[in-house]
Amino acid sequence: MDGSNTHPGLQSLYAEMEPHSLYPLWEVLHGLVTPTPQSAAAPHLWSYAPARDYLLRAGDLITAEQAERRVLILENPALRGTSAAVPSLYAGLQLILPGEIAPAHRHSQCALRFVMEGDGAHTAVDGERAVMRPFDLVLTPNWQWHDHGNETTKPMIWLDGLDVPTVRHFETSFAERLPESAQAQAVEDDQSYWLYGRGLRPFRGSTADRRPARQPLFHYPYQDWRESLAMLARSAAPDPHLGHALEFNNPADGGPIMPTIAAHVRLVPAGFRTQPRRATDGTVFVVVEGAGSATIDGRMFTLHERDIFVLPSWNELVLQADTELVLFGFSDRAAQEKLSLFREHRA
Amino acid sequence: MDGSNTHPGLQSLYAEMEPHSLYPLWEVLHGLVTPTPQSAAAPHLWSYAPARDYLLRAGDLITAEQAERRVLILENPALRGTSAAVPSLYAGLQLILPGEIAPAHRHSQCALRFVMEGDGAHTAVDGERAVMRPFDLVLTPNWQWHDHGNETTKPMIWLDGLDVPTVRHFETSFAERLPESAQAQAVEDDQSYWLYGRGLRPFRGSTADRRPARQPLFHYPYQDWRESLAMLARSAAPDPHLGHALEFNNPADGGPIMPTIAAHVRLVPAGFRTQPRRATDGTVFVVVEGAGSATIDGRMFTLHERDIFVLPSWNELVLQADTELVLFGFSDRAAQEKLSLFREHRA
Amino acid sequence: MDGSNTHPGLQSLYAEMEPHSLYPLWEVLHGLVTPTPQSAAAPHLWSYAPARDYLLRAGDLITAEQAERRVLILENPALRGTSAAVPSLYAGLQLILPGEIAPAHRHSQCALRFVMEGDGAHTAVDGERAVMRPFDLVLTPNWQWHDHGNETTKPMIWLDGLDVPTVRHFETSFAERLPESAQAQAVEDDQSYWLYGRGLRPFRGSTADRRPARQPLFHYPYQDWRESLAMLARSAAPDPHLGHALEFNNPADGGPIMPTIAAHVRLVPAGFRTQPRRATDGTVFVVVEGAGSATIDGRMFTLHERDIFVLPSWNELVLQADTELVLFGFSDRAAQEKLSLFREHRA
Amino acid sequence: MDGSNTHPGLQSLYAEMEPHSLYPLWEVLHGLVTPTPQSAAAPHLWSYAPARDYLLRAGDLITAEQAERRVLILENPALRGTSAAVPSLYAGLQLILPGEIAPAHRHSQCALRFVMEGDGAHTAVDGERAVMRPFDLVLTPNWQWHDHGNETTKPMIWLDGLDVPTVRHFETSFAERLPESAQAQAVEDDQSYWLYGRGLRPFRGSTADRRPARQPLFHYPYQDWRESLAMLARSAAPDPHLGHALEFNNPADGGPIMPTIAAHVRLVPAGFRTQPRRATDGTVFVVVEGAGSATIDGRMFTLHERDIFVLPSWNELVLQADTELVLFGFSDRAAQEKLSLFREHRA
Repeated sequence: MDGSNTHPGLQSLYAEMEPHSLYPLWEVLHGLVTPTPQSAAAPHLWSYAPARDYLLRAGDLITAEQAERRVLILENPALRGTSAAVPSLYAGLQLILPGEIAPAHRHSQCALRFVMEGDGAHTAVDGERAVMRPFDLVLTPNWQWHDHGNETTKPMIWLDGLDVPTVRHFETSFAERLPESAQAQAVEDDQSYWLYGRGLRPFRGSTADRRPARQPLFHYPYQDWRESLAMLARSAAPDPHLGHALEFNNPADGGPIMPTIAAHVRLVPAGFRTQPRRATDGTVFVVVEGAGSATIDGRMFTLHERDIFVLPSWNELVLQADTELVLFGFSDRAAQEKLSLFREHRA
Repeated sequence: MDGSNTHPGLQSLYAEMEPHSLYPLWEVLHGLVTPTPQSAAAPHLWSYAPARDYLLRAGDLITAEQAERRVLILENPALRGTSAAVPSLYAGLQLILPGEIAPAHRHSQCALRFVMEGDGAHTAVDGERAVMRPFDLVLTPNWQWHDHGNETTKPMIWLDGLDVPTVRHFETSFAERLPESAQAQAVEDDQSYWLYGRGLRPFRGSTADRRPARQPLFHYPYQDWRESLAMLARSAAPDPHLGHALEFNNPADGGPIMPTIAAHVRLVPAGFRTQPRRATDGTVFVVVEGAGSATIDGRMFTLHERDIFVLPSWNELVLQADTELVLFGFSDRAAQEKLSLFREHRA
Repeated sequence: MDGSNTHPGLQSLYAEMEPHSLYPLWEVLHGLVTPTPQSAAAPHLWSYAPARDYLLRAGDLITAEQAERRVLILENPALRGTSAAVPSLYAGLQLILPGEIAPAHRHSQCALRFVMEGDGAHTAVDGERAVMRPFDLVLTPNWQWHDHGNETTKPMIWLDGLDVPTVRHFETSFAERLPESAQAQAVEDDQSYWLYGRGLRPFRGSTADRRPARQPLFHYPYQDWRESLAMLARSAAPDPHLGHALEFNNPADGGPIMPTIAAHVRLVPAGFRTQPRRATDGTVFVVVEGAGSATIDGRMFTLHERDIFVLPSWNELVLQADTELVLFGFSDRAAQEKLSLFREHRA
Repeated sequence: MDGSNTHPGLQSLYAEMEPHSLYPLWEVLHGLVTPTPQSAAAPHLWSYAPARDYLLRAGDLITAEQAERRVLILENPALRGTSAAVPSLYAGLQLILPGEIAPAHRHSQCALRFVMEGDGAHTAVDGERAVMRPFDLVLTPNWQWHDHGNETTKPMIWLDGLDVPTVRHFETSFAERLPESAQAQAVEDDQSYWLYGRGLRPFRGSTADRRPARQPLFHYPYQDWRESLAMLARSAAPDPHLGHALEFNNPADGGPIMPTIAAHVRLVPAGFRTQPRRATDGTVFVVVEGAGSATIDGRMFTLHERDIFVLPSWNELVLQADTELVLFGFSDRAAQEKLSLFREHRA
């Protein structure tokens, strides 16, 4: 709106309308319908080492049971008070100490866990345990019972990624706690990985077809995705804007892993620099291997193993790999595609 | 979280972490993951008469072209500063005076128009005009060019419903203006109503199949929906929780009218009182005919023709019809169902 | 296979294998996997007048109840013994005399009825009557109870189109008869036309949402489709290969009217001659209005009102309208698209 | 139809109508619309040893190139002349001798290959080789270029399963030969197995996303499915009617492997006898391991390794495992489900 709406009567009209909860669109339209996305979030990087230290200190001060979930929220510095990493997603670092369990609950929110360190703790989903190894991806889809336990001798730390802000936006949060802290074990560990994760599924209508039809698979082991990524890197040229990139796939429908969250991994070969790319999905990245940099709308972040950084919507990303760089990322692309909102631009 | 997390070391940990943008989940978890939805919105009713008066005064003070869109926002009093009627939806009253046009643009936001008064102005979508009559529903789906014009001799007022807050949440707003203020007329008025709106569609692959495949229909005339609603009321008992209720249908997929917004109409027979019902979708209602009341979480609103009221997520609604009551409503149910978030409860 | 497989040992091998039900592919491969479709069907036209005469004579000789369905099969002369009009579809002319009922049954086969003459008889589907007028399209989708009755004073004749040969091909025929000859009337006549046929549907989960979710609409009146076709003809240039053509749409999914059968109407303006077109679907046409000709792979058929003709798969069709020509057609395109088999070629 | 349609006038009516290609439905209705499926096929078993002998003899008498495909058709003895194993499916045993290639072509028909013996030959699909090992499943989906080659020192034999009769039924056969006998190698062997077969897929829109979106995966190795089947057998009770059964899954949509054909494997524990089950899909089985019997509508077939047998539509199957019995099966269930025709009954 240009400066021409300066008719003296307008201000008194505004004042009269306000008690009626009526406001002039033309004074705010430019901020509501922008020509391109103007993210409220800032690009930001959390170094792993200090975050880990704080998390372990929290482990001394509060029990997993007291906390329900002992997690440090990675809140975007430009979104203070929202508990959001980007406006639609939440990220946190969770610690389970040896012998602890995080009690069983379920909720409308979809969650993923990406293992940062530790080996052998478990996430149980509807009575089935996924045994968690470094850089495994484990899902706890919405409204499925889940708990976590660490029967190993070392602390277990993973990144939690949830759609908390999106469920809040739509005001659709439901949650329940199981009276017992852990679920009864219903089937063999990682059964659904074997039954759904390899181009197979239980015969439709058979007694073995026990997982929810739309969300049967919840464990994507590092060993598998790293091997596939290596195969891709060995056998094809990198995509100029992405490097070598693989998405995690829901075998029930060929779509993203959960209704609101998509996840992927990528490998940028040593010495490779990606062409600039923008996309509307806000993304949280974990550096799995290697060193290099991420330049986000002109601001450079140096990357080290296990660092976590966020790429806000429509910010331009350029990745530079000094050594072979492997990243894991999750974003709200799943929701955006369902709502016909996703776009990308490759320069 | 109970009161037991009072270890003295916690506060100093929090203070140290804060500069690193790290925060304890356990202090806020109860607000992030609630057992049931706790809407930030308030139930609210806008009487039509005063809103209409303000809108006509705005018509004296600012031109449609100056305003780009001359609209009074119906902002929820509990959501001050957000331009939202419920957290995910925007609603406004738009005025087009005789001889005016609202210039052509397109944007990522989906919009619906529900005609409150006036007869014969038009909304043009991608070169095709829908001629707007009282209580018609007209869509301007995302990224389709649209303008409005009033070649009649009377003011035209309609309710705008948009997913502005949802597009803002996902940070995916794109918009463009056409250099010319109105689009060239490409086809006969309301052609797509005749070609897509009656159990038909152009032969796949034929030259007549010109509308976007996923969003071909954009005009749902009052005459049609009112007649169907009357037929339903004549031939069946009312649903105890809804009265007689019909949804608007996208004939391209059998789903709601747009990816983010669903709309429906209902008729409550004179003397009928609905059973209490809660649902997670926030809904904006227009009173089309009749008189009665809406009781929302125990708070009663008296209903008159053309009044507009909002029902926040998970608030309990009871409708009482003194005379035959006809309502139009739109909500974010479309988005919620796509994201597996929708729930309802019928008492 | 060329003539080189003349090794003398082959014939004795063939003779030895035959008792084991083993046969050489290379002797028949050219017939099993052809470069283009080689239809077993012939193009053929049935003049309406003589067919009608035979049908009325059958009406004198056998009752509707005796016959279960009093129908003359339009069998393709090149497919003797198969009861098929084209290899995947059946067509017949059914007669219901005043006062008669065709008893209630249901079966796996999908059926459509296209009214040739008479006005006011009914088809009842799951307790709801569609009142049949000339050139109306009425569906009896698979496994829905249906009967027919004629309470008027004149004979009623319609064309039946079924997927009988396809159900036979897959060997999936189930059928049941209702103990009573007619179903009890459950709802008002044509209720589902009003509730599902005009860009609406009953509110999901409401008591009015009684029809099967995937097949709610079963009556497409002539009055509607003819008006839309006229609108199209008035407002656009004809498609060079089709004329003006509209498909019947299933509003539950935006696809064809039934899982195995698609149907459409087209209007060829007086004096217009279509460009040659081939498609893989075998099609049965009815001449609704006008006069002209259909040239099928070079063979010309003169068209008069109510004549019925078949276009076999991949035969080239050219339509010539002497006066404005209106056709109804149904084909197996629905099944072919679901199985990724459909193709067309426009010369 | 009972005996009451004996009116003397009927026969002369029939005689008069016949030249007009008009026939009385009531004389054939009972055969067209049956209360339950009456399969034209017979249950049948082919012992592997003699079939293999004939195939090797054919290898001496005709070259792969002469034959285009050197295959013995397993024709159902009750369907003589149709080249069909069950009415909708074709099965054959193909032999590729060391050094041979089966030249490149593509066609509308979908094909699967199930390896019976030999190790290391390949099927190339659109320039990518799948290296074939015993009991691997390899697909050549419709209209994808494919050839086969054997660079090992031993004969390679596999079972071909195709939808030839279904493509014939719909008259939609297209086929082309590549001028060169083999395709150029475009990517590393089995690349798509690594990129699509393990809960992953190339990042949407990246240069690595080269396979057809709806049919990306075409190699399902024995090693994977056998291991998953063993896991299932170890961790759950067998389904009473199926034993332990896993379907092959298309990761692009969660459906069967191809639009017309579904495939599965099952394991019946030693000593287990399945409860009787009927289903409408005609199925071709291969005995992969073990010994036992299949009783089909009361007729018992003794099973040995590599034997092939067919189960016609709606025939009752009981499996008895003497030793642990592992079967591979493929059927037309995929097509039947798309056309809403599939049913099963478990006694």
